[in-house]
Amino acid sequence: MHPRTRAHARLACAAALCALAAPVSLPADEGMWLFNALPVERLAARYGFTPSAQWTHRVMRSACRLSSGGSGSFVSPDGLVLTNHHVGAAVLHKLSTPERNLLKDGFVARSPAEELLCPDLEIIALAQIEDVTARVNGEVPPGADAAAAFEARRGAIARIEQESQDATGLRSEVMTLYRGGLYHLYRYERYDEVTLVMAPEEAAAFFGGDRDNFEFPRFDLDVCLFRVRRNGAPAKIEHYLTLRRAPLAEGELVFVAGHPGATQRLYTLDHMRFLRDVEMPFRLTELNRREIALQQFALGSAEDARIARDDLFGIQNARKAFRGILAGLLDPRVLAAKAAAEAALRAKVAGDPGLGAALDDWDAIAQSLAVLRGFYGEYQALEVGLAFWSRLYGHALALVRLAAEKEKPNETRLPGYRESDLASLLLRLHSPAPIHPALEQAKLAHSLAVFATTFGGEHPLVRTVLDGKAPEARAADLVGGTALGRPEVRKELAAGGAAAIAASTDAMIVLARTVDPYARAVRKRYEDLYQSVERERYGRIASALFAVHGTDLYPDATYSLRLAYGTVKGTAGPGAPVPFATTIGGAFQRSDAAGGREPYELPASWLAARARLALDTPLNFTCTADIIGGNSGSPVLDRDANLVGVIFDGNRDSLIWDIVYMEDPGRAVAVAAPAILETLAKVYGADAILRELASGGR
Amino acid sequence: MHPRTRAHARLACAAALCALAAPVSLPADEGMWLFNALPVERLAARYGFTPSAQWTHRVMRSACRLSSGGSGSFVSPDGLVLTNHHVGAAVLHKLSTPERNLLKDGFVARSPAEELLCPDLEIIALAQIEDVTARVNGEVPPGADAAAAFEARRGAIARIEQESQDATGLRSEVMTLYRGGLYHLYRYERYDEVTLVMAPEEAAAFFGGDRDNFEFPRFDLDVCLFRVRRNGAPAKIEHYLTLRRAPLAEGELVFVAGHPGATQRLYTLDHMRFLRDVEMPFRLTELNRREIALQQFALGSAEDARIARDDLFGIQNARKAFRGILAGLLDPRVLAAKAAAEAALRAKVAGDPGLGAALDDWDAIAQSLAVLRGFYGEYQALEVGLAFWSRLYGHALALVRLAAEKEKPNETRLPGYRESDLASLLLRLHSPAPIHPALEQAKLAHSLAVFATTFGGEHPLVRTVLDGKAPEARAADLVGGTALGRPEVRKELAAGGAAAIAASTDAMIVLARTVDPYARAVRKRYEDLYQSVERERYGRIASALFAVHGTDLYPDATYSLRLAYGTVKGTAGPGAPVPFATTIGGAFQRSDAAGGREPYELPASWLAARARLALDTPLNFTCTADIIGGNSGSPVLDRDANLVGVIFDGNRDSLIWDIVYMEDPGRAVAVAAPAILETLAKVYGADAILRELASGGR
Repeated sequence: MHPRTRAHARLACAAALCALAAPVSLPADEGMWLFNALPVERLAARYGFTPSAQWTHRVMRSACRLSSGGSGSFVSPDGLVLTNHHVGAAVLHKLSTPERNLLKDGFVARSPAEELLCPDLEIIALAQIEDVTARVNGEVPPGADAAAAFEARRGAIARIEQESQDATGLRSEVMTLYRGGLYHLYRYERYDEVTLVMAPEEAAAFFGGDRDNFEFPRFDLDVCLFRVRRNGAPAKIEHYLTLRRAPLAEGELVFVAGHPGATQRLYTLDHMRFLRDVEMPFRLTELNRREIALQQFALGSAEDARIARDDLFGIQNARKAFRGILAGLLDPRVLAAKAAAEAALRAKVAGDPGLGAALDDWDAIAQSLAVLRGFYGEYQALEVGLAFWSRLYGHALALVRLAAEKEKPNETRLPGYRESDLASLLLRLHSPAPIHPALEQAKLAHSLAVFATTFGGEHPLVRTVLDGKAPEARAADLVGGTALGRPEVRKELAAGGAAAIAASTDAMIVLARTVDPYARAVRKRYEDLYQSVERERYGRIASALFAVHGTDLYPDATYSLRLAYGTVKGTAGPGAPVPFATTIGGAFQRSDAAGGREPYELPASWLAARARLALDTPLNFTCTADIIGGNSGSPVLDRDANLVGVIFDGNRDSLIWDIVYMEDPGRAVAVAAPAILETLAKVYGADAILRELASGGR
Repeated sequence: MHPRTRAHARLACAAALCALAAPVSLPADEGMWLFNALPVERLAARYGFTPSAQWTHRVMRSACRLSSGGSGSFVSPDGLVLTNHHVGAAVLHKLSTPERNLLKDGFVARSPAEELLCPDLEIIALAQIEDVTARVNGEVPPGADAAAAFEARRGAIARIEQESQDATGLRSEVMTLYRGGLYHLYRYERYDEVTLVMAPEEAAAFFGGDRDNFEFPRFDLDVCLFRVRRNGAPAKIEHYLTLRRAPLAEGELVFVAGHPGATQRLYTLDHMRFLRDVEMPFRLTELNRREIALQQFALGSAEDARIARDDLFGIQNARKAFRGILAGLLDPRVLAAKAAAEAALRAKVAGDPGLGAALDDWDAIAQSLAVLRGFYGEYQALEVGLAFWSRLYGHALALVRLAAEKEKPNETRLPGYRESDLASLLLRLHSPAPIHPALEQAKLAHSLAVFATTFGGEHPLVRTVLDGKAPEARAADLVGGTALGRPEVRKELAAGGAAAIAASTDAMIVLARTVDPYARAVRKRYEDLYQSVERERYGRIASALFAVHGTDLYPDATYSLRLAYGTVKGTAGPGAPVPFATTIGGAFQRSDAAGGREPYELPASWLAARARLALDTPLNFTCTADIIGGNSGSPVLDRDANLVGVIFDGNRDSLIWDIVYMEDPGRAVAVAAPAILETLAKVYGADAILRELASGGR
């Protein structure tokens, strides 16, 4: 299934656009379009459909994004949110105890009073978009170099966000689109009081497990329901979606409104090679190491397996996704197509200085990548934090930085520590979600050992961090010597500011204080030597693309709300054709064929309901809409903006969509709305929820 | 359990000796002693035991080594060989089919006629040792540099081995001991006709699985029985061991006669750092990647899991062992002790030129390691073969090299291709063991992808190897385009020599022909820039150690036969003390406590026999004898040379013994002889085997 937002910070994604081919030859269903720049001509020409302003507004306002990493939609006037089980899984994990395993056993609230308050889940919903490009660029002093321009824009963005937030009370975020081609201010409604309403058992939500992940046919009820609230009461929601009971027809036009995380479709050829030869191998190596480490930890006991489950799932999922991307990058046809498209654009640029770019732009990106390669591991270890694989350390560093950044003017603070970011930051810092010391210790010991061997045991910072001890012993000292597992301690330190941090003798705070200057230094190098160059040069290349191809372009995904479209469609398959839909009955057949054994063990609730269920109810389906990780939980809509499904995966051939969209045989995979209604009624007896879902309409 | 010979070629092990401390302060039970230089004074002083010439001869001649990687012993006059189940596992895997899973279900031959012929198992038994140091060194021309000396000695060794083999008919191998301090000619009886006699179910042999591996208490019947034959009939064996039924007492003196693979106890401080910062991380990274890849393959079906089992076991076992070694290297106390001992020796060397070494020797080793670091990945990929993780490729390269090497004079051939090596080489090449194309393809695709990303997709050799295809497609082409899965094809190519190889269009032969020159080139660099320097300089450091400490020293392990000794002893434990022995009844209790669930599921045969078994029979025990990987299957003997157990593992704290022996809390772990006799009788009804075991004595 699609990764929640990626486990590691991703290289800031390049400005998008389809760089492999001229837009006129975009595959018909390619594109993750901005809601204020929908491809109306394409839709009209191909599907005879023109979204009305009302349609667009309703769809945009019904979509939402979850801080656990994924998309969702409002499905009732009383704040019910429908998303994926795997988007909610981190929350289910946090709400679980040795005695109450919500991941394994599922959960159904029979009434709003039975719903469970989620420890630190935040849901935001896009309310307004405003183009602020002129103001952002207007604050760059004439003649500024790339690093200075980067700084100036960052200051402008901080001011715009803060002004907007002060004026409207809405969470305000300036999105960099086309890597500097456009800057749009996104204003969101923000909900930080969320309750869990319903989740099926993991055996139903993740039927087929790691084995069937990113495959089709599938039989997964990968959904769960939350509710946003205000002061304890269900929030009133004006725009929401209604689930359609009627099955989809093959070839039907559908839309996906969600938050794709990051694509790299505009990357230059050299940047693709960096992805292939540096970034993807680096990440896969790290994921493999971590997967083995967590598997070993989980062998300890059933309880160890339970507490490691959420981390392990995220890693396995990312590993499978990255392998797919790497496989694409290693396919010479993909890079050959990129090379051809790049050569064509470079030829145009060479012949016309008026396009706003120069051949030097490609070279500058290549050079900055060569420089980045030299400290990529250091950046990942210290600033992305791979050396300190620990939630406690994450809290410690956030507290140390919060104290330091609050002393600075708002517009010069690190991203994540500006006034407009503080509510979300404090929600995380104050979270009562349990932190498991044994798991923390195992993860930290693992990552410290990797850090030591990567940098070499004699590296001064390694010596400082390890403090004369072996990684296992040092991890035990750190986890044993910190009180940051207690939310009240974090709350006190957050409130105490720089003085409290300076005075703290908490082992993890002391470590974060020690590491922070090194992390900041490598971050500065990253920004000055790579990120600012990238933004400047990709911005110029984007200008050339605009000049050559006009505005029938979409930006690379940036975790902002987008509309994709496509048709309900199966695949030709390597052997026999694969139909577009599976059914509830198919899940039982698959389980029977496997003797009911893992990963095809249906939960007791399903087995008990077998005779009652309409077995021909569609369960999962595929369509051609252009989606990637971050789209998990996105509503799939029909022409009338009824909810017909919930995106939860792509097939194996869609994994390459991070770098290039190829319609066949890639497919997005969704849970079909009829299966949600059927199982809520007959498996989960969720009558109150069904009444609420129906209250809005058909 | 202890690794069979390591999955990857290990850096040639350094000359041994205990470099951490002066020999006078060797922990009492440290040492892997040569049979022609046993520590008689130590044994007499500490245990009042002096091995007679007859005792020594009998023990030496009763020990044997298996080509599947491990040790064993003769236990009947008719060629019965006792070893570990995990040493025999590769053979059990080769003899299995989808219908007959010998690993899972075990095997008992009720008579010699029922025994199964093993496809390519070779067993050798040491017959004679001869010191050839003077002749080897005598052939080095005066004034030769390190590389020339290395060449000259290699030629001498080839001639000595060939002459010996021609004269005696015994397999002859010159062992480099103390990394050039001594050269001993080992002559072996060789048996290449071996049958499988008995193996328990994996659930009994590997009870507790990956979780309990390298832990104690343990409850594993990790044994199996083979028989060596000559012309179909059981071979007549003069020297063999008898199993003792009486239980061991705590504190009893025991001996281990086996083939420890490779230790690095003499490594210089810089060499230890190389192990910590380069070699171990490199190998663990590779093992983690491969473990995940095989796990993914095994998810495909029950049959996929079966065919991947043997590779997966070897990887998991090595991964756990290497993690233990790395943990030791990352413990600052270990390297601090090494630094102190090295400083003391360097001080002596600096003050006395007559010791035969100079401070420059340490520097030269450090410099050669810095050079090696620059092409370590290339060496591993091309010459060790990590880029081509495939048995078919292994066969192809062996065939290509065999054809080329046979054209050369014997003494200039690559090791492994000399006349004295050919019988073993052809046994492997002609093996009828099944090769599974789907597994081959998955492994090859994995390793080609790693190769491409490590070297970069634009590397000329990557382009040549991938031939314009993605790794998966290329692997499919290679596996689909080779006939080397059929032993008769390999036999024909081996017989056809250089002409047949040159004419072959087999895809894998073509690939091996292409890669071979690159592999030879990096091998040459490895020998010239690292290996010859290491041999020369460690040889000089060893001379200094001899001069300072006399001859009360043992060489680092080199997979040659050694005698270790120690006492039967439990550990203090981190919590409660851990007694030295477990019982058969303990296995049932452990299984009951786990609800009979994996990895604590005892086989049906044990459950059926529960009431009949003497539950207080000792099953596993620990002792202080100095063992490492390669010792698996070694007989444990009492003062009277009766077999009291079979080594199969060390506890977690013994993993560091690769680099330093520390008596507490490290322990060797063995299967107790009484449990072998008890289960053969009451679980496996192996009456004929029991009669044969008893036929020799008490």
